[in-house]
Amino acid sequence: MKVRPSRADIPRGFRFSATACGLKKTGLDLALLTSATPAAAAAAFTTNRVQAAPVRLSREHLKKSRQKVRGIMVNSGNANCCTGPSGLASSRKTALELSRLLDCQQQEVLVCSTGVIGVPLRVEKILSAIPQLTQHNSSKSTAFEDFTRAILTTDTRPKWAAARFRLGGRQVRMIGCAKGSGMIAPNMATMLGFLATDAAISPALLSKALRSVVGRTFNAITVDGDTSTNDTVVLLANGESGASRIKSENGDYRRFSTALEKVCRSLALAIVADGEGAQHIIEIEVRSAASDDAADKIARAIANSPLVKTAFAGADPNWGRLLAAAGRAGVPFDPDSVDIQLAGIRVCHRGREHAFDERVAHRKMLAKYVPVIVDLHAGGGNARVWTCDFTVEYVRINASYRS
Amino acid sequence: MKVRPSRADIPRGFRFSATACGLKKTGLDLALLTSATPAAAAAAFTTNRVQAAPVRLSREHLKKSRQKVRGIMVNSGNANCCTGPSGLASSRKTALELSRLLDCQQQEVLVCSTGVIGVPLRVEKILSAIPQLTQHNSSKSTAFEDFTRAILTTDTRPKWAAARFRLGGRQVRMIGCAKGSGMIAPNMATMLGFLATDAAISPALLSKALRSVVGRTFNAITVDGDTSTNDTVVLLANGESGASRIKSENGDYRRFSTALEKVCRSLALAIVADGEGAQHIIEIEVRSAASDDAADKIARAIANSPLVKTAFAGADPNWGRLLAAAGRAGVPFDPDSVDIQLAGIRVCHRGREHAFDERVAHRKMLAKYVPVIVDLHAGGGNARVWTCDFTVEYVRINASYRS
Repeated sequence: MKVRPSRADIPRGFRFSATACGLKKTGLDLALLTSATPAAAAAAFTTNRVQAAPVRLSREHLKKSRQKVRGIMVNSGNANCCTGPSGLASSRKTALELSRLLDCQQQEVLVCSTGVIGVPLRVEKILSAIPQLTQHNSSKSTAFEDFTRAILTTDTRPKWAAARFRLGGRQVRMIGCAKGSGMIAPNMATMLGFLATDAAISPALLSKALRSVVGRTFNAITVDGDTSTNDTVVLLANGESGASRIKSENGDYRRFSTALEKVCRSLALAIVADGEGAQHIIEIEVRSAASDDAADKIARAIANSPLVKTAFAGADPNWGRLLAAAGRAGVPFDPDSVDIQLAGIRVCHRGREHAFDERVAHRKMLAKYVPVIVDLHAGGGNARVWTCDFTVEYVRINASYRS
Repeated sequence: MKVRPSRADIPRGFRFSATACGLKKTGLDLALLTSATPAAAAAAFTTNRVQAAPVRLSREHLKKSRQKVRGIMVNSGNANCCTGPSGLASSRKTALELSRLLDCQQQEVLVCSTGVIGVPLRVEKILSAIPQLTQHNSSKSTAFEDFTRAILTTDTRPKWAAARFRLGGRQVRMIGCAKGSGMIAPNMATMLGFLATDAAISPALLSKALRSVVGRTFNAITVDGDTSTNDTVVLLANGESGASRIKSENGDYRRFSTALEKVCRSLALAIVADGEGAQHIIEIEVRSAASDDAADKIARAIANSPLVKTAFAGADPNWGRLLAAAGRAGVPFDPDSVDIQLAGIRVCHRGREHAFDERVAHRKMLAKYVPVIVDLHAGGGNARVWTCDFTVEYVRINASYRS
C-alpha cells in the first residue's frame, strides 16, 4: 500500500472537502463527498437496536431515492445518537441544506455522524460550514486525504485503500476510506466506511456485491465485540469511467467484486491494526466445522474472549484459552478432535497438548500478524475473522478519555 | 461478615484438611472435605463444551451414587483439562484411592481441579498426599480455613460465608467457600464452590434449591464473560444437625433456600469483588423488560461490554455505552423508552440525556459498590447481574502470568 493516494487513484466525477467546524476541540471534523452525477448507492448499517438519527435518516433517504446519491456529509465529534426528535431534525436540516446547495433532492443526500453519544448536536456549526464545503470540494488527492482525516475519532491514523481495474477495456477506479479504532465502540469509535468508484453498475447488483463483501471483511473484524449505534458503510458507483454498465453477474461483476473485496479487506485490517491499544493483528481461521455458521460462531467466541486477547498481548502460546473459548460458543463439537496451530506451530493435537517449543512460539507471536488455525475435523464449514490483542493501553484509552 | 469462621460455623459431621502436594510452586494446593455419613449431594457444572476430566467423572459419580457423597478432593495448580484419556484415568485413580481410605464406594467421591489447562496432571503427587489428608482432617475452623486457601489460584484472598438458622426447633449450620477471580477464566481462574450443611433434605429438593439459587447468584456474576471448563458448585447436606428431614416445599424448605441464597450471594459477590484487577462491584438491574429472559440478555450484554467495564474503571458516567450495549443484546426494545440510573443518579430519561452533575456522578462512581438500573418500560421482566470494572491490572494479570 502506498503511503499517500495520487490523483490517478481518485475515481472520476467525485469530489471531496473537509473543514473544522468546531464539533471537536481541534482538527477537521466535517467532511463532504459529492458525485457530479447521481451515483448508484448501496449501504450497510449497524444492527444495534439503538440507531443514531443519521443512520435512520440515511436508511430512509436511500429507500426514497431508490439508491441514488449525490452527496454524503460526515461529522465527527458527536454521534447524534440518543438525542431524541431534535437529533433527527438536526440530521434533516443538514441534508436539506446540502441538497439545496447541490441542487438535488433531499433524499439524494446521506448523513453520517460519529463521536460521543447522548449529547445534543450543535447542528448550527454544521449548517454554517456547508457552503464552504460545497464551494471548495475538489477531485485532488489532497482533498481526499483531508476527508479521511476529518472522519476520525480515537483512530491514530487515516485508513484508505484504492484499486484500479479494467471493465470491458476501460480503466475503472475505486477508492475507499474508513474510521474505527475501538471496533465497534459506541462512543467516539464507530466504524464508518466510504467507497467510491466510477464503474457503472445497477443498484441491485451494487447492493449484492457490497453485502457479500462486507460479510467477509468489515463484519469479520472485531476489536471488543461492541457494535456501535452509528456503523455505516456506503458504496457509490457513478459510472463516470465510461465503462459499460454491469447488469448481470458476469465476468465484469466478478472483477468488480474482487476489487471491492480487496479494498474492503485492506480497510478492515487497517481498522484492526489501529484497534485501541493493539499491538498484533490476529487472524482466527476455523476449519472443518459442522457448518459455516458454526465455524463463524466459534471464530467470534475466540476473537472476543478477553482471556484469549490478553494472552496475545503477552505473546503467550496459551492454547487452552482458545479451546475453552471455542467450547462456550454454543456450538456442539468434539473437543477430542480439535487441532490448533498458533503462529504456524502445531500446539494442540486431538484436543491435547502437542509438544512444542514455548520460546519459539512466544517469539513468533511477537509478530505484527499472528495467524491461528482451529481445525474441528467435523465437516465442511469454514470461517475467518480478525481481531487484535487486548492491552493495557486499551483500558487506558477507554477508562480515561472522558472523565 | 466476620473475618474468620469460628467452630460454631462448622456444620456437624464435616471435616476438612489441606496440604501442599507440589502441584503449585508454593503453598497449599490439595484440599479434602469429608462427611462422617453419606451426605445428600447436589451440583452445578460448567456448560462449556470442553469439560475437564474431574467434571466428567464427578457427573458420572453423582449419577451412579444417586447423589450420595462422602468426600470431595480438590486440587489447584492444574485443571486436568484437555489431557485426554490419561487425564480421566488420573481423576479415577484419585477417587479410587480416596474411597479406599474413607471406606466408601468410588462413586461417593467427587473430584475437582483448577489451574492451567492442557498440561498433564502429575497425579502421583496427589495420590501420595491422600493418606495424610484423610488422617488429619478435622472439624476445626482452622482446617476449614486451610481448605478455603488450598483451592485458590489467581484469587487474592479466600472467600467464605456461613449461616445458622432453625429448622423445626433445631439449630442448623451451613458453610461455604469459593474460588474464582477471572470469572470464569479457563486458565487458573475457574469458579469452584463448596457448600456444606447439617440440614436433612432429600436429594431431589436439594438439587431444586441449588439450581434455583445458583441461577440468581453464581450464574448472575461475570468478570470477563469467559466460562471455564472446570466450573463446579457442590452442595452437601448430611442431616447431622438432627433436624427433621425436608421432604416437601414447606416452610423449612423456604428457610433452607433463604439461607442457601444468602451464603451463595455472599460468595458470588466476593468473587466479583476479587475479580482480576477489579476496583468496583457493579450491579446491573434491568427492569420492565418484555420478559425475564430479555432482561437477562440485556443485563449480560451490558455486564460483559469491555467499553462499559472500562468506563466504570474510570468512574466515567458514560451512559451512552450502557444503552449501546443494551442495543446489541439481540432483544427488541424501544430505545426512546429507556430510563437509566447510575449510582443512584438519573442520567438518561426516555432514551435521552437527563441533565445531571457529572462531577457528582463521577464521585459516586468511585464507591466500591455501584448500582445501575436500566428501565425499559416494556413489560414485567426483570434481571440482576453483577460484574466488576475492567482495569489495566486485569490485562497485566492475564497478559503476563504464564510467559
